[in-house]
Amino acid sequence: MSAQTTPPVPSLSGGTGQTSSATLALALDLLARPSVTPDDHGCQPLMIERLEAIGFHVERMTIGGIDNFWATRGQHGPVLAFAGHTDVVPSGPESEWDVPPFTPCVDAEGYLRGRGAADMKGSLAAMITAVERFVAAHPDHEGRLAFLITADEEGPAVHGTRAVVERLRERNDPLDYCIVGEPSSTSHLGDVVKNGRRGSLGGVLTVRGIQGHVAYPHLARNPIHQSLAALQALTETRWDEGNDFFPATSFQISNVHAGTGATNVVPGELEVTFNFRYSTEVTDEQLRERVAEILDAHGLDYRLTWTLNGEPFLTPDGKLLDATRAACEAVTGRCPALSTSGGTSDGRFIATLGAQVIELGPVNATIHQVNERILAADLDTLSRLYETILQRLYT
Amino acid sequence: MSAQTTPPVPSLSGGTGQTSSATLALALDLLARPSVTPDDHGCQPLMIERLEAIGFHVERMTIGGIDNFWATRGQHGPVLAFAGHTDVVPSGPESEWDVPPFTPCVDAEGYLRGRGAADMKGSLAAMITAVERFVAAHPDHEGRLAFLITADEEGPAVHGTRAVVERLRERNDPLDYCIVGEPSSTSHLGDVVKNGRRGSLGGVLTVRGIQGHVAYPHLARNPIHQSLAALQALTETRWDEGNDFFPATSFQISNVHAGTGATNVVPGELEVTFNFRYSTEVTDEQLRERVAEILDAHGLDYRLTWTLNGEPFLTPDGKLLDATRAACEAVTGRCPALSTSGGTSDGRFIATLGAQVIELGPVNATIHQVNERILAADLDTLSRLYETILQRLYT
Repeated sequence: MSAQTTPPVPSLSGGTGQTSSATLALALDLLARPSVTPDDHGCQPLMIERLEAIGFHVERMTIGGIDNFWATRGQHGPVLAFAGHTDVVPSGPESEWDVPPFTPCVDAEGYLRGRGAADMKGSLAAMITAVERFVAAHPDHEGRLAFLITADEEGPAVHGTRAVVERLRERNDPLDYCIVGEPSSTSHLGDVVKNGRRGSLGGVLTVRGIQGHVAYPHLARNPIHQSLAALQALTETRWDEGNDFFPATSFQISNVHAGTGATNVVPGELEVTFNFRYSTEVTDEQLRERVAEILDAHGLDYRLTWTLNGEPFLTPDGKLLDATRAACEAVTGRCPALSTSGGTSDGRFIATLGAQVIELGPVNATIHQVNERILAADLDTLSRLYETILQRLYT
Repeated sequence: MSAQTTPPVPSLSGGTGQTSSATLALALDLLARPSVTPDDHGCQPLMIERLEAIGFHVERMTIGGIDNFWATRGQHGPVLAFAGHTDVVPSGPESEWDVPPFTPCVDAEGYLRGRGAADMKGSLAAMITAVERFVAAHPDHEGRLAFLITADEEGPAVHGTRAVVERLRERNDPLDYCIVGEPSSTSHLGDVVKNGRRGSLGGVLTVRGIQGHVAYPHLARNPIHQSLAALQALTETRWDEGNDFFPATSFQISNVHAGTGATNVVPGELEVTFNFRYSTEVTDEQLRERVAEILDAHGLDYRLTWTLNGEPFLTPDGKLLDATRAACEAVTGRCPALSTSGGTSDGRFIATLGAQVIELGPVNATIHQVNERILAADLDTLSRLYETILQRLYT
């Protein structure tokens, strides 16, 4: 075994030193690669080299031009996967960055700066070093370890985790637990763990009227006028009451458009774009039906197209949440809050395999912004969190 | 006096012959000039030459680059003006025309074809020949005759009739009667006389919300959701009941726009464009106040801008309508219907001088369309209608 297979345990006391932490060193290496979606830019080969060195079997899955890989270690027992993405969102105007976005560094206040520091190359580095230490300590660990890594989470996300999950499903590869490295924390590392996400269902409603001249409204049928009551009913409907883990389902209209700009023309069509963020108390099928019922009740002549962006998922109390809570308390001294709020993540795809899925990662205050940063010391803490979860589950 | 001042009375029996009718000859001459708004293209000089030849005093009023003229004959008594425009709307695709739009001709079925035949060079020709005959028969007629002609009725209409009317108002020039040559007829020449027009009041409403992410609606304020009830109230309000001459005031939303296209963003603003066509039972001031009351009652944060396109006007029974009805019955054998329907015309500006204003012109079935046409024989009839109104009023 090479030196890399038995890395030194990182120095937690001097976490901001650039050479004293294996996690920080790897994070810096990843952050220096400008892997803007969908370009992996060499991040995955770096991770693969490290994983193969400690006995992982790695399958590269390049799908639709997107680099992904699936890596496993162990032959028997439950499968725990670390999941994440190497791609980052564009830097935005570089002139607004205090340091160049792809020249990472640790600043005087101890912040690791660079595009992807929080979302989510810091997590990737922490996963790798956590597993390296765990494998070094438990070369014949119980269960199986896995990595599900994509280079397209921030983009269309069609040929990324979704596609890998379909391959796993087709060949009946089991997945029991999954830790997604999304930056779940709000104020302090580990203060929030996401144990689910709401579903996202989008709709585009086109209401047809009859175009005409405003001076002859009796010859026209104004689709705006016709739709107002139905739209109001949609905004006032209580779709569910939520539950212990989810707020009530929400309905928001994001776009309305009708008219060509001419002020004397009754438009022939109205287009309305809306989105549901929905709880596990309703299904997308029920929402579609109820919307159609409301539109029908108002006698509209309409066309409706739907896009299911993601079904909701929820990881209830169980082995993974127990281990995660215990790890947070042991490493950070704080009990994490559980949350299902916010947007969507690749967790929505992974959960369809029946796995218990949680998201645990750095503080998300600066993600997708200029000057993205996290406390460099949090990297070692996060690595220890991941390692401790492994210990709780597999030893 | 030259031959032009005593033109032959046109032959009504052979109205489709291109040389037998002075009105048709003048109409053909006007139609051959491609006077697309705002280019007069020599039409007004042609009219001015004819009017000066029979003793009119002509003032050219070129305002803001737009050719207009005001011509008068006579020193005392009430003033009757013929009003109209030499400009025409664009031809549209010439390939869809059966004959070139600016190469007028009379077809085998007796239709005069060309852009502007109905709207309104036919009327201009009929006005000129009517006045020529009337002046020849009554060189010392009672009252005063006038022409108010513009080359910008189909365009912005800012430097056209509106501006000429302002000059007349400034110098206290009286105007008692006005015949606008707009194509008022629907099936047969003279079947409809417009004795008023509804007012047109436009509004642009901008409702301010707070932009946000659809996943966090509690941090946003959706201006679409907020506005629905108020917009519904506006569309359901009964503004008045109309009266004998006007239908009830109507409110139509012509445009609504909100959202940038992103499906996950709650928009920060909603813009709604609407238009009132209103009767003489309400004022624009009342409409503005009532709209603001409704918006205020719904607690909206809004900005509202108004455009008064034209106040309503109504010419009640009186000398001009009496003379017009009598002329229609005498010349066409039919009693005209009175109407205030349709869009706006320059009559809205002229009426502000306190004049009795009517619109009487050809059948409007083909205006603004390709293959615009009127029965050539109707030109002589229209000229006789105008002449008969003059006789009723001034002899």
